[in-house]
Amino acid sequence: MSEEKNLVPTLGLAASDTTGKMIKHKFFRRAIGANDIHIQISYSGICHSDIHTGKGEWGPKEYPLVVGHEIIGNVVAVGSSVSKFKVGDVAGVGCFLDSCRSCTECKEGDEQYCTGPGGFTGTYGSKRDESLHPGGQTHGGYSKDIVIDENYALSVPANLNCPAGTPLLCAGITCYSPFVHYGLKKGMTLGVVGLGGLGHMAVKIGLAMGCNIVVFSTSPGKEPEAKAMGPEGAVKFVVSKDEGQMKAQAKSCNMIYDSVSAKHPLKPYLNCLRSSGTLIMVGGVPDKFSDIGSFDLLPRRLKVGGSCIGGIRETQEMLDFCSKHNVTCDVEVIKAEPELVDKAWDRAVKGDVKFRFVIDTAATLKE
Amino acid sequence: MSEEKNLVPTLGLAASDTTGKMIKHKFFRRAIGANDIHIQISYSGICHSDIHTGKGEWGPKEYPLVVGHEIIGNVVAVGSSVSKFKVGDVAGVGCFLDSCRSCTECKEGDEQYCTGPGGFTGTYGSKRDESLHPGGQTHGGYSKDIVIDENYALSVPANLNCPAGTPLLCAGITCYSPFVHYGLKKGMTLGVVGLGGLGHMAVKIGLAMGCNIVVFSTSPGKEPEAKAMGPEGAVKFVVSKDEGQMKAQAKSCNMIYDSVSAKHPLKPYLNCLRSSGTLIMVGGVPDKFSDIGSFDLLPRRLKVGGSCIGGIRETQEMLDFCSKHNVTCDVEVIKAEPELVDKAWDRAVKGDVKFRFVIDTAATLKE
Repeated sequence: MSEEKNLVPTLGLAASDTTGKMIKHKFFRRAIGANDIHIQISYSGICHSDIHTGKGEWGPKEYPLVVGHEIIGNVVAVGSSVSKFKVGDVAGVGCFLDSCRSCTECKEGDEQYCTGPGGFTGTYGSKRDESLHPGGQTHGGYSKDIVIDENYALSVPANLNCPAGTPLLCAGITCYSPFVHYGLKKGMTLGVVGLGGLGHMAVKIGLAMGCNIVVFSTSPGKEPEAKAMGPEGAVKFVVSKDEGQMKAQAKSCNMIYDSVSAKHPLKPYLNCLRSSGTLIMVGGVPDKFSDIGSFDLLPRRLKVGGSCIGGIRETQEMLDFCSKHNVTCDVEVIKAEPELVDKAWDRAVKGDVKFRFVIDTAATLKE
Repeated sequence: MSEEKNLVPTLGLAASDTTGKMIKHKFFRRAIGANDIHIQISYSGICHSDIHTGKGEWGPKEYPLVVGHEIIGNVVAVGSSVSKFKVGDVAGVGCFLDSCRSCTECKEGDEQYCTGPGGFTGTYGSKRDESLHPGGQTHGGYSKDIVIDENYALSVPANLNCPAGTPLLCAGITCYSPFVHYGLKKGMTLGVVGLGGLGHMAVKIGLAMGCNIVVFSTSPGKEPEAKAMGPEGAVKFVVSKDEGQMKAQAKSCNMIYDSVSAKHPLKPYLNCLRSSGTLIMVGGVPDKFSDIGSFDLLPRRLKVGGSCIGGIRETQEMLDFCSKHNVTCDVEVIKAEPELVDKAWDRAVKGDVKFRFVIDTAATLKE
């Protein structure tokens, strides 16, 4: 069949099983359809979700599984109906490749909350029709090539076409989307809980939005680093285990972005919100909210809200915003060798990275 | 002293002690200052907060204490600088009499969240300077007269000058304010948990805003009543203890207004929200949120937010809105006799009222 003939062969680094150990893996992308673009991947970021999914911690997967949903690369071919990209453009791919396109959420540009059957098509690990995803499961960015509908690809500005721009596709939008949705404005004070991959992006994007930042961290040693992220006085540092420091910060923040995914108390952060403030949860703490209740929210109109990545239109807006303000991620670039990715995952699990690993896929992923 | 000479004598029904038992009580309002208006009270609603405060359940109080913060009456005198009211106007008083006027919240019209020293001056039970509140504690609406700064009084439209209009000053604004703040819009679906004093106002105001309503109640017997509140098909009724009915309502509501103040599960209501939906808590449940956590909020950008009454400008807006749409409260009018108020409080505690008691103060409060 001619379709099959035109499948795009590629090479990836795949989790071999629930240990997450990387192996080289040859597989196929679908033939380039009328609306598709073929991207030769330059860089692929390592996100904590890769590790959870790769190890089957968020549900069983089929192996080998190629993960990675922070992707930047060069467009090397386009389908006959493609209008937004041409060969030679730089394109990005984030956390999903497609969605139902017909539910209210998709129509409103919130494809990340797609309520169609099965929700959005995750960039990796989603079971989908073989005709679109050879093998019946999507595979992500730890690979040399990807084929994607142009409507789900992002246009990457020139100054973001680098390893440091790559994590914006997940970490960047995970900050930007709730900031916009929950109404962060210039001149406001933004609290950021946890100075890791997400947290440091939140600081950078918050600063670019014209906010004052308060970093809440359990590690006093991170103070100089945090303060150095902005101009003199723009970033305060609070040791969250120090009651006195927390008390001094009472009612100071318009919004607090909580990036921590381990169990931690929330009431101290509600105390740091001004009236009508919002505590944004993005960390996916498995536990229930055991230390807050309605009497913590009512008297000052506080709210606790979740957020999850962002839609395509909003992700493009975020890239353009970060391009304009020269916001990128602090990254450590690694070669696409199985044992180096294994090591990077181990270090990421321990929080031993400043602040994100990026795999230099194009230059170093070889058979 | 001439000031003292001009104190306004009045008569009230006061909680005698922590039993909450009513007694007649003569006391004074302050002399009418330049910015003050003197209101002869026509009607005073009975709010659950009256009972909690009157019995000392929300902190110790001095007795006798006159409660009541849903007040409508006639302006019978005005101070020399008063510009918004004249003698003969109908004025209303809600949950507070004053605030600091200088904090950000006050300046933004959110006096209910005043962050000045001591916060707003509650209509009753607030300890304040004797010069403004003879006796050193504020006394509320179960009385014949009140003196208030014109900037904290509301103008009551003619069609709301009745017992049924009175509870709008607390119950009405407790619905209207979060609806506006959290973005309720025409055509949306509003869930209402609990069909009591607050809940039935939420249904009425939600209908007037052009929403479809889903009433969640533990009492199947309330179905006909709930459905009769709106035009054919506008009000759905769901027995919240019926898992099948709850499941059928999954992802149906843009917003859910939770008026229940007893401990109850929240996760079933989050399940009934559409993505980006808001669960509004106004009931003041003493317990913590033990059945929800960040994984219940993240994947669909849900939020849980509190709300508490409303500001003066917003309360006026609410009265004008309710006047235009002929929204009033269903009330049971009682005479201002101590034993009748005692009985009304007992019945209110049991939820045995449809839906709010109002004391006909002017006609029946006698020495």
